[in-house]
Amino acid sequence: MQLEPADAAAADAARARQACLTKPPGSLGRLEALAIWLAAWQGREPPSLGRVGALVFAGNHGVAARGVSAYPAAVTAQMVANFSAGGAAINQICRVAGAELAVVPLDLERPTADFCATAAMSEAECLDALNRGMAALADLDLVAVGEMGIANTTSAAALCAALHGGEAASWTGPGTGLDAGGVARKAAVIERALAHHGQALGDPLEVLRRLGGREIAAMAGAILAARERRIPVLLDGLVAGAAAAVLQALAPDALDHCQAAHRSAEPAHGRLLEKLGLRPLLDLDMRLGEASGGALAILLCRAALACHTGMATFADAGVSGRDAAL
Amino acid sequence: MQLEPADAAAADAARARQACLTKPPGSLGRLEALAIWLAAWQGREPPSLGRVGALVFAGNHGVAARGVSAYPAAVTAQMVANFSAGGAAINQICRVAGAELAVVPLDLERPTADFCATAAMSEAECLDALNRGMAALADLDLVAVGEMGIANTTSAAALCAALHGGEAASWTGPGTGLDAGGVARKAAVIERALAHHGQALGDPLEVLRRLGGREIAAMAGAILAARERRIPVLLDGLVAGAAAAVLQALAPDALDHCQAAHRSAEPAHGRLLEKLGLRPLLDLDMRLGEASGGALAILLCRAALACHTGMATFADAGVSGRDAAL
Repeated sequence: MQLEPADAAAADAARARQACLTKPPGSLGRLEALAIWLAAWQGREPPSLGRVGALVFAGNHGVAARGVSAYPAAVTAQMVANFSAGGAAINQICRVAGAELAVVPLDLERPTADFCATAAMSEAECLDALNRGMAALADLDLVAVGEMGIANTTSAAALCAALHGGEAASWTGPGTGLDAGGVARKAAVIERALAHHGQALGDPLEVLRRLGGREIAAMAGAILAARERRIPVLLDGLVAGAAAAVLQALAPDALDHCQAAHRSAEPAHGRLLEKLGLRPLLDLDMRLGEASGGALAILLCRAALACHTGMATFADAGVSGRDAAL
Repeated sequence: MQLEPADAAAADAARARQACLTKPPGSLGRLEALAIWLAAWQGREPPSLGRVGALVFAGNHGVAARGVSAYPAAVTAQMVANFSAGGAAINQICRVAGAELAVVPLDLERPTADFCATAAMSEAECLDALNRGMAALADLDLVAVGEMGIANTTSAAALCAALHGGEAASWTGPGTGLDAGGVARKAAVIERALAHHGQALGDPLEVLRRLGGREIAAMAGAILAARERRIPVLLDGLVAGAAAAVLQALAPDALDHCQAAHRSAEPAHGRLLEKLGLRPLLDLDMRLGEASGGALAILLCRAALACHTGMATFADAGVSGRDAAL
C-alpha cells in the first residue's frame, strides 16, 4: 500500500504554538502531543474537533457455539438494540464527549463460519465487510473505532497469534468474564483453529478472512479509510487492536494516524500494543469494547485542543519566560 | 484526628446498581469505582456532579532566591493574573470539564522565609494558611485541588523527604525544567534544609511549617475540610501530593476521600503516590501543576457518572445475562 504521511507543516506550526503558551515547555505532556497529532493528520493549524464520532461495528461469530464466551450470541443483537435505545455505556460516554455515535450491524443473523473447521468468511464476505467499514466512515475530525460481537475476543486472540506468533494461550484472556476453565477451553479452540489453517496464514488479509469476523474486517476498513482521508483515529481495545494489527502487517505505516485510546484489562491487549508500537492514553481496567475507551479518550483530545487554542502566550499574558531572572 | 468514614449504605447502593447495568460486571473498570466512590463520599445514590470546581492556591517561596527554579519568582503573580484573564491551561481544562475555577493567592508579596536558614512560616502564618485553605472550599460535589508557586517543588521534595525518609536527591526532580546541574543544586538546597531543621521535623504540622509554603498549607486545609464535609477530592501532582502527605502522616485515613488524579512526570510523584497508597487515574507525562491533572480527571468522573446513571439495566433493555445460554 502507498500511504501519504501526515502534514509536516501543520505539525510544525502546532509545535511552534505550543512552545509559546504560558507553561513550561512540555509540561502538558501528552496533551501537547495530542494537539500536534490532530494538526498533523487534519493538515491544519489549529486543528478542529467540530465533528467527532464513535463508530461501532457489530458482528456474530460461528465460533461462539463452542462456548468461548460468558454470554450467549443473542446478546450481540440485543446490545445493538440497546445502542439504538441509548442505554449502553457508549451512549453515555459519547454524550459527555460530544461525539455522535454510529452503529453498523453486519449481517448479525448470519454469523461467520466456525473457524476451527473452515475459513470464517469467504473472500466476498470479507471484502464486503471491509468495504462496508470504509463506507461507514463519515466526514469527521476525529473518530473512535470499536465493536460489539459475542466471541470476538476469541477471533482477536487468534488474529494476534497468527500475525505476531506465540502460543494461543498467551493471547487468550477472560473476555467478558470466563473463569479459568473457560479460558483454557477458549485457548484450545484457538489452538485448534491455528492448526487447521496452518500454512494458509501467511498473508494478513487471508489471516483476517480465515480467523476474523465481519466487525473486525469493517474496523480495518474504517481505519484504512481514515488513513487515506487523514482522519485521526482512536483505537479501542483488543478487538479493535487486532483489526489495526492486520493493517500494520500490510504496511508498517498504516497506523501512523492512530492513537491507542486505552489499555484494556484483557491481558493480551498490552502485549499487542507493544507489538504495534502504541502507548495507550488511558489505563483504567476497562474491557467493555463498544468503543468505550476510544470515546473516553476523545475527552482528552478536547482538553488538549482547548489548551492549544485557548491558552495565552507568554507575550500576550506578560508572563516572564524561562531563565528570565538569570 | 477523629474522622468519619464514607457512607457505606450509599456505596452499597451504587455497587448494586453497577451490577445491573448492561455490561459484563467490572468491565468499566475504574469508571465503576469512581461512581461508587462519588456515592460513598457524597453519601447518596446516585451521586451528582452538579457543582464541580478546581481550587488553586498560589504562594511564593523564600527559597526561590537560591536558584532552584527555571523561572523567576515574579511568575507566580503573573500566572495568577493569567488565571484571572482566562489564559492558563487550567482555565481551558475547567471549561471543557464544566468546572468552576477558584484561585486563591496567599500573600504573594510576602514570600515564606528561606527554609535553609529558618522555618518557612511562623506558627501564626502556617495556621492562617491552613485556615484560609479550609475557608476557600465552596459547597462542591467534587473538587480538584492544585497550586501555583515558583520553587514549590523544592518545598514539596523537602516535605516528602522529611515525612517519608530517603535522600533529598531521591525526591528531587527538574520541576519546571531544570537541567542536571540545576537539579543537583536543588537537591543540595533541600539537603541543607533537612540538616538545618534536623530533629525538629518529628510532628507533621511542624514539618509543614518549617519546610512547606502557604499554598501547600492551604491545600492541606482544603483537603481536610473536604474530608470533614465529605466532598470527594482529586489530587493534582507532586506539590498537592505533599500537602496530602502531611495529612496522612497525621491520620492514616485522612485521604480516604481522595483520588490521585494523575501521576506527574516529576519523578518523585510516582514514589510519593506509592507511599500514600494511591493509584493515579491518568499518566500523561503532565507536570504543570495549577490543578491541571485534577481538572482533567473531572472528565473521567463525568463519564463514570453518566454511565452510572444513564445506562439501561439488563432487565430494562431485554439483554440476556451472563451464562444465559448454559
